Amino acid sequence: MSLESEFVRWLTERVVQRDHVLRGIGDDAAIVAGDQRNQVITTDLLCDGVHFRWGEVSAARIGRKALAVNLSDIAAMAAIPEAAVISVAFPRGFALAEAQQLYEGILELADQFDVAVIGGDTNSWSAPLVISVTMWGRVTEHGPLRRDTAQVGDRILVTGPLGGSILSHHLDFTPRVRESLLLRSRYDLHAGMDLTDGLSLDLSRLVASSQVGAELQLDAVPISNDARLLSQSSHKSPLEHALTDGEDFELLLTAAPDVAARIMSDKDLLLSCHDVGKIIAEPGLWSITPGGQRTRLQPQGYEHR
Amino acid sequence: MSLESEFVRWLTERVVQRDHVLRGIGDDAAIVAGDQRNQVITTDLLCDGVHFRWGEVSAARIGRKALAVNLSDIAAMAAIPEAAVISVAFPRGFALAEAQQLYEGILELADQFDVAVIGGDTNSWSAPLVISVTMWGRVTEHGPLRRDTAQVGDRILVTGPLGGSILSHHLDFTPRVRESLLLRSRYDLHAGMDLTDGLSLDLSRLVASSQVGAELQLDAVPISNDARLLSQSSHKSPLEHALTDGEDFELLLTAAPDVAARIMSDKDLLLSCHDVGKIIAEPGLWSITPGGQRTRLQPQGYEHR
Repeated sequence: MSLESEFVRWLTERVVQRDHVLRGIGDDAAIVAGDQRNQVITTDLLCDGVHFRWGEVSAARIGRKALAVNLSDIAAMAAIPEAAVISVAFPRGFALAEAQQLYEGILELADQFDVAVIGGDTNSWSAPLVISVTMWGRVTEHGPLRRDTAQVGDRILVTGPLGGSILSHHLDFTPRVRESLLLRSRYDLHAGMDLTDGLSLDLSRLVASSQVGAELQLDAVPISNDARLLSQSSHKSPLEHALTDGEDFELLLTAAPDVAARIMSDKDLLLSCHDVGKIIAEPGLWSITPGGQRTRLQPQGYEHR
Repeated sequence: MSLESEFVRWLTERVVQRDHVLRGIGDDAAIVAGDQRNQVITTDLLCDGVHFRWGEVSAARIGRKALAVNLSDIAAMAAIPEAAVISVAFPRGFALAEAQQLYEGILELADQFDVAVIGGDTNSWSAPLVISVTMWGRVTEHGPLRRDTAQVGDRILVTGPLGGSILSHHLDFTPRVRESLLLRSRYDLHAGMDLTDGLSLDLSRLVASSQVGAELQLDAVPISNDARLLSQSSHKSPLEHALTDGEDFELLLTAAPDVAARIMSDKDLLLSCHDVGKIIAEPGLWSITPGGQRTRLQPQGYEHR
């Protein structure tokens, strides 16, 4: 197990959860309640060489991504993004114009989603670029979407084709904020999260949180063009890319079968949903082949190293 | 001018301030208002080699400092700290035990100040340790203490001896949260901030924000033992250390002369305050020697490089 997995497990047990906080570490965002507030908070730290490669992509795209991954976490909880604070450590010698371009990428996306960038901390140091974004949002009257409330019998939906994100989607995706709010306002969703570490790994987390299991219909998993393209030079099939590649930033949702059917036939949702399987009582993850063969699916994906 | 100064100046002008946000970049913390909320938010990014030196101090003290500097920002605004999210990038090869010690330092101080650590993001990368803390607090019925509301004629107070923090105080200080709340509840303070970059530099910022000036009574500036100790090996006088060293994490306050006098004679404040000068209409910073000589004081301190 990686340092990060071990550490997060330890921390989750260690941290005292106080009563104005409902959920915490390990989720897309924390929910802060009480005092007439109903907020979600999320934070992501992006490091050169891990989440982007400085020099290979423009500063503006890096900045954009730093904000977009947090917006995706807010979308995962079907909340309305409100504001963010952003801290940066610039490598010494970083040019002002580059710093400005980084922020133009951030601010352009912030404008599109009406997020106020209200503060931050700026440092220089003798190491690569780091960007930390903390964002909060307002929960609607429908309440926050959670990953621990999937119900046996639910259909499992994803909001777009998966895999191959590394080719460009991880930098250029549009966070599913509007789609999530629209879906939440129209339909009784049982559970949800955003896909950051690969469908099989993220689904395994959702079912573990909800103390249920899932069957994935392999021929129903939507495969992106980039997954097919990547497959030509990798040793993996397009389906493997769709199941295990990280940073899709699509939504993973569950809903009762009749609700799922209505979602699937709704032509007015800003996106098309794909029904990829069902929630079952038996814990764990199972794949169903087109021929109907049922085998245990080992969750794989982007493990934080 | 350093990249950071230039960048922050540019950003302050560039960022759109939306109406649910009263203040932003460059202050100790942002104030979020509206929707029945009245919160302050602060964030600090701590980098190995800048804010601490990994290997020279324990992981627990580093973690403690990461939380403490944010608590000091909340204290600067006389708000009640509530919760924090914390992100870390560990250097590859970092041991789990070290990661745990870092968090034990964080969590021990969090417990002391009843701060819930409710989330975060954990990464590993091929570069030094980085810790990002974002903390929020609740404003009391007295409202947030601000740095842009000093009034001509105010006395200038500091809450403890200054200088020489680098010897150990910058790691082990107790954030002035309780003291700030107590002072704020008893007295009509006009303005305040915490001392992070040196008295002369921070005071110059306070007076610039308030569009006033200040006279510092040099023989009234409280000098720490560490400033005297450091002076023995540096080329600076103890007073120079007290005026220009960073990371004192004491409070800098202004109040009307009668209020300041009552604060100075209050024996029940958890600390002793020092009256170091007065707010004047003429912009800029001036020093008054014991002999009464008045000269312009060049603000110096920790400039973010």
